[in-house]
Amino acid sequence: MTKSNPILDALRERRSIRKFTNDPVEREDLKAILDAGRWAPSGLNNQPYRFLVIYDDDARVEALAECTKYGHIAKAAKVLICIFLDKQSMYSEMKDHQGAGACTQNMMLAAHSLGLGTVWLGEIINQQDQVLEKLKLPADRYELQVVLALGHPDQKGSSKRNELSEYMLEDF
Amino acid sequence: MTKSNPILDALRERRSIRKFTNDPVEREDLKAILDAGRWAPSGLNNQPYRFLVIYDDDARVEALAECTKYGHIAKAAKVLICIFLDKQSMYSEMKDHQGAGACTQNMMLAAHSLGLGTVWLGEIINQQDQVLEKLKLPADRYELQVVLALGHPDQKGSSKRNELSEYMLEDF
Repeated sequence: MTKSNPILDALRERRSIRKFTNDPVEREDLKAILDAGRWAPSGLNNQPYRFLVIYDDDARVEALAECTKYGHIAKAAKVLICIFLDKQSMYSEMKDHQGAGACTQNMMLAAHSLGLGTVWLGEIINQQDQVLEKLKLPADRYELQVVLALGHPDQKGSSKRNELSEYMLEDF
Repeated sequence: MTKSNPILDALRERRSIRKFTNDPVEREDLKAILDAGRWAPSGLNNQPYRFLVIYDDDARVEALAECTKYGHIAKAAKVLICIFLDKQSMYSEMKDHQGAGACTQNMMLAAHSLGLGTVWLGEIINQQDQVLEKLKLPADRYELQVVLALGHPDQKGSSKRNELSEYMLEDF
């Protein structure tokens, strides 16, 4: 019998959402999502994460959409949360990247708990320099980690995982 | 008024726990924690995460403790969960490292939801080659990401974060 509680259920049930309704994201919900990112752990508690919120009526949406083959998803979202690392607060490339992932996961779980949907856009970071230029952010200071597309879900979302045994290097 | 629900509360209230009671971790709890890691997102759903569970009566605890200046925490834990990336399933160094962070965060939140405590040991990955050698794992196949120390909390844990405004590149 698998254990269950609201947190375990959320961890298992969250799925990527790529289609959104036209309903706006309430400011209080957005604030709770960003706040969840703030509470992510970081190495030495350096807190190198930086956030930029772009609403769907902002001209920068189109500019960002041009930087990724998933531009249609960026344009479908009601809000884009861009997550960066501030290089001045970094201490280890690998560990700060891991931390940015924990931060992103916190935001996605917070959104899910509020009935909102997200998808983690990762391909866009391959066009790192282009994005930073369009956002007028100095490339020697910031490193784009994730663009999180956010909105009210207009699909159920589906994804599968391999059995736990396939993740285990040994029985436990 | 800040929004609240069990998931948001867990995201805000989880803290690193470095002191543990002598109570064992129940197998069903451990399974739920590993399962939460399995449900982390990964780029292209590649699922490159691999887990190794080491209990406190295993000689490998001492071997791992010798690889980090936080060896006393590794020895205090009832269980160590070693999280690796399988290089054969990786597709992007930065994105897979981010994913390993999301996976770790899922496990820490799952543990918290079950009344258990964890601390993310990151310093040990600086001694990557030494750890892989002691665990008899091929360095050309696996990359150590995190050692998660787990047990029943014997402290409350405390940590602070900067104000959300300090994370924001612009007002939102």
